[in-house]
Parts: sequence; C-alpha cells; structure tokens
Amino acid sequence: MYVTVLGSAAGGGFPQWNCTCRNCSHLRSVRTGEGARSQAQLVISCDGLQWLCLNASPDLRSQIISAPFLAPTRGTRATPITGVLLTSADVDSVMGLLHLREFQPLRVYATPSVRRILQEENRIFRVLERANPPVIWQDIFLDQWFVSSSSLSNGKAPLRFHTVALGGEYPDYVSEPLRRLLPPEEAVIGVVLAQANKQVFYAPSLSGRSAHWKDWARSSDVCLLDGTFWTDNELISLGVASKTAREIGHIPLSGSDGLLEQFGPVARGSGRRVLIHINNTNPILDEESPENREVRHAGWEIAYDGMEFEL
Amino acid sequence: MYVTVLGSAAGGGFPQWNCTCRNCSHLRSVRTGEGARSQAQLVISCDGLQWLCLNASPDLRSQIISAPFLAPTRGTRATPITGVLLTSADVDSVMGLLHLREFQPLRVYATPSVRRILQEENRIFRVLERANPPVIWQDIFLDQWFVSSSSLSNGKAPLRFHTVALGGEYPDYVSEPLRRLLPPEEAVIGVVLAQANKQVFYAPSLSGRSAHWKDWARSSDVCLLDGTFWTDNELISLGVASKTAREIGHIPLSGSDGLLEQFGPVARGSGRRVLIHINNTNPILDEESPENREVRHAGWEIAYDGMEFEL
Repeated sequence: MYVTVLGSAAGGGFPQWNCTCRNCSHLRSVRTGEGARSQAQLVISCDGLQWLCLNASPDLRSQIISAPFLAPTRGTRATPITGVLLTSADVDSVMGLLHLREFQPLRVYATPSVRRILQEENRIFRVLERANPPVIWQDIFLDQWFVSSSSLSNGKAPLRFHTVALGGEYPDYVSEPLRRLLPPEEAVIGVVLAQANKQVFYAPSLSGRSAHWKDWARSSDVCLLDGTFWTDNELISLGVASKTAREIGHIPLSGSDGLLEQFGPVARGSGRRVLIHINNTNPILDEESPENREVRHAGWEIAYDGMEFEL
Repeated sequence: MYVTVLGSAAGGGFPQWNCTCRNCSHLRSVRTGEGARSQAQLVISCDGLQWLCLNASPDLRSQIISAPFLAPTRGTRATPITGVLLTSADVDSVMGLLHLREFQPLRVYATPSVRRILQEENRIFRVLERANPPVIWQDIFLDQWFVSSSSLSNGKAPLRFHTVALGGEYPDYVSEPLRRLLPPEEAVIGVVLAQANKQVFYAPSLSGRSAHWKDWARSSDVCLLDGTFWTDNELISLGVASKTAREIGHIPLSGSDGLLEQFGPVARGSGRRVLIHINNTNPILDEESPENREVRHAGWEIAYDGMEFEL
C-alpha cells in the first residue's frame, strides 16, 4: 500500500493568504519557501498505478500537478485518479471536487448526508456530471467495510476501507431544515484503509466527542490524525476568531484530555503516528519550538507535503 | 493604475490535471515547468496598496501567495485585497471565493443574477459570512459606472468600473426554475476599469453573440480578451468534448468571424491587446507554432502568469 501526503496544512494552508501570525510572517521571510504546506490531502494506492484521493482539498489542482505519478498517461482524458473519498462536507474536504470538473469519470464516496448537502444545496457540484459517463456518487455507511472498485482488476489484494463516526458537526453553511434531517454521526468520519494485513487510519478532524477512533488508530501501521491546534484557545488568543478549537471540531494536541494525552504513550514497535491538518497558527510548525520537540519526543511525526509511506 | 496577471489559462489551467494533449504532454516534459499557467486571474489597483480581484479563480490561494505585494501587512487578518468583481457564475470565476473564507471582510461585486445563483442555490458560499463584518455583496447593474469603495480614501483619483453585457449564458449547473427568472444579459459581463484618463477592458469570455465589447476594447489602453480557443472545433477534434467553442461561450481566435477578424487590424499607437484565459489545447501556447506567430504578427500579446501593466 502506498500513501502520499500531497498537503499537510489545515484550511487556509501555510502561509494563509491573510494571516500575519508568527509562523506565517516567518515563512514569508524565508526566500526558499521551505516549510510551506498546502491544505490536507492524501492519495492512496494498492499498486502505485491507480490512486484514491482522501478528500478533495482546495489546493488539489496544484497538488496533482506537483505529483508526477498522478500525471495522465493513457489517452486524452485519462488519469490514475479513480475516485475521491470524503470525510466531511467541510470546504477543506470538498472544494477540490470542483478542480476535477474536466469531463472526467470518477467515483465519489461519501456518507449519504454529505452527498445530500452537496447535491441538494450546492448545485455547483453538478459540473461533475458533465463527464461521460458522469461522476458516480457512492454512498458509504458507517461501521461497514467497502472495497474500492478501482482496485479489483489488477490481481493484487483489493483496497478496502471502513468508516468510523467521529462525533463532529455539519458545516455552518448547511441549512437548518436539511441539518435536522441528517443523522449527526454522518457529519465527520475517519477512514480505515486496509490491504492484505496492512492498515492505515486517517482522521484529519477529531472532535474528541467520540472515542471510537482510538482502537483503529492504535492498531494501524500508520495513523494520520488531527494536528490542527496546539491549545484550545489558540485562535482566540491570537484575536482571529471567537471560538475554541473544540468548538470548531478539533481536539487540541496539548493539555489535559488533548490528543497526545488521549492517545497515550507510543509503545516501541507500534505503528507510525503522524499529525496532519496542521493550522498555520500551531507552534509545532516551528521546528525550533518546544512544542515541536515535545511532539517528536513523544513519538509523533509531523506531516509535510510530499511525505510518503510504503507498507 | 496597476494590473497584474496572476493567472492566464482557461478553466483547468495549463497543464490540465487529466489532459495529455500535445501542449500538456510537452509542458510535462519540461523540467523547469516554464510555460505553466494557472487559471485566469487579474488584480488591479490605483495605488499599488489596495487591490481588487477580477474574478476569484480556482487557483486564487496559490496565486495570492506567489504575489508578494498581496501579502498581509497590518494586524492578524489584514490583506491588501479589498474585494472581488465577478464577471460570471462559472466555476472559473467564482470557485476562488471559497479560498477567501478565512474570516476576512471583503466586498463582492456581481450582477444580481450571479449573486442569486451563489446565494440561493449554493449555500457553501455562506462561509464568507463568517467574517466580522461579513462579506458584503454589492449588486452591479449593466451599463452603469461604479466607484470601487476601497479606492476612495487615499487621495488618488478613484478606480471606477463599468459593466458590459457580452451575450454569454448561465452555467449548466444553474437550476431551470432559477434560470428562467434571470435576465440573460446578466450572465456574462465584461468590465471597463478606469482611473483618471486611463482605461482597461477585461473580457475573459466573449461569446461573439454581442458586439458591445468592441468599442470598449478598442478605446482602452489595455484590453485583455478571451483567448480560449484557436478553432471552433478544437475540443471536438481532440475527442475531449462534443461541443464547439462557440457553443460553450467562446468565440475562437481564428477563422471567419473569429476574434482576430472581428477586432480588425491594430493601428499603430493604439492600446495593448492581450489574449488571456487560454485553454491548454490552444496552439498559441506553443511559442514555435505558426498560430503563435500569426497572433503576435497581428499585434497581439499572449498573457502569462506574472505579466504586469502600469498605466
């Protein structure tokens, strides 16, 4: 199984276009741009030939262009990308579907609720229907295993995935009438991806209001988890928002009942633990910071654009 | 007046993620990436301090990051970008509004019809309301002059703009019931931008079904016009679509009644004529091609990312 991190930042990316926080200002002063991160995006493959996108980030076009293994090779509208699996209806997760509008047949996996939000209240996503055949929306249900259809024909063990409810909320742009119809547990999911005896767990948004993710994360060869904020009041203390990290659906890394404490110590020989979806304000982005050191000493890795895993 | 081309390609950009046409394949073989173009995006300013975006391209985040003069300077959520003027509801024109969702007060200028499409049928754009104060939508009406509010306080002559109906159509994602309510002439506009005695005309989509644009283009110091396709059957002959250039709202450059012929010869001493919104399939992108030579010999320039004008 191959996993590539095409983007590792939270919504807005790093640097964020309108932000002068310490991290963003410092990054702008670095001539090489080293350390810049685009918005969280994974691609995963069983064979290195056909790839599934985990979410569709707002930066997806440039992320695809930057990855030579995703260049089209066969015919005029061919791509190694066979589908997209959505973990929420957040802008961060879905906006990039619009980058994929170029007459390209694809399969989009989402919970029925996330599909309904896009199909019923956001007609712009119908541009995906221009393809011939049009994009296929495939409902995925909670706590079930699915087989990625693209991985069936190549003789390898198929890529399977399993969804895990994470207790997050629907985005604020969803109408009240529709929101009332949608089961809350379909709002934000984590996804377990498995091939043969290898397993990856991806959860870029962990609300902390459900503990279902823990066993999946601990039992995986690689888990990539929500590294958005360091402290609960990170945005408030910088004066850029009035809500805590937890109020916008992200358990902070530090502190009592933060992600690092909830996950517990990392045993020798266990899988790799990676923080992703890192907000531009998070001090772990500064490699000289005590927070960065603390995370690494606790056995965690910090995702960067271009990071690769081969299992 | 300052104008910068942040992006010069049509929808999909160049190279396009899923395209193996001659141009895209050649560009992928160039190690430096020289010649790559992001999706059409202009920014314009009276003073070089406050900037108005003409449309909001799908690539807007990376385009802003690549332009040091658009970096924020004052406070935590400050940006020199004061607003966005939309020329249509096409994905190419509006998707980038979602890049601007980071709690940033802005003004969005659009025809009432384009505003209604986004507000009534695409709730995802409500993420712009998170800002404090929220994004202000300002209706612009056809054949009227407006003063850009951001340019009033700095002692310079204000930036004024004027909209011109171009005869295009609403995007196919708009519902039939809403489409029936919308006046067709508000679907696609060109925009005349003026400061003191200087004038720029921008029309990235020219359907050819209206001649209103010609006098504005010819009388401008700089006009940037629809350079999407070279021939009417460009997409059909490559097997990537079933519609002609004209059928999807773009008059081709060449041929009888094409843009070059309609515009007529360029007189010595007249303004600069620039082709923009160039599709990845257009042979003018190949600097060695006869089509590229023909365009340049006829007095036209071909826009590229980073092209600047000072008037």
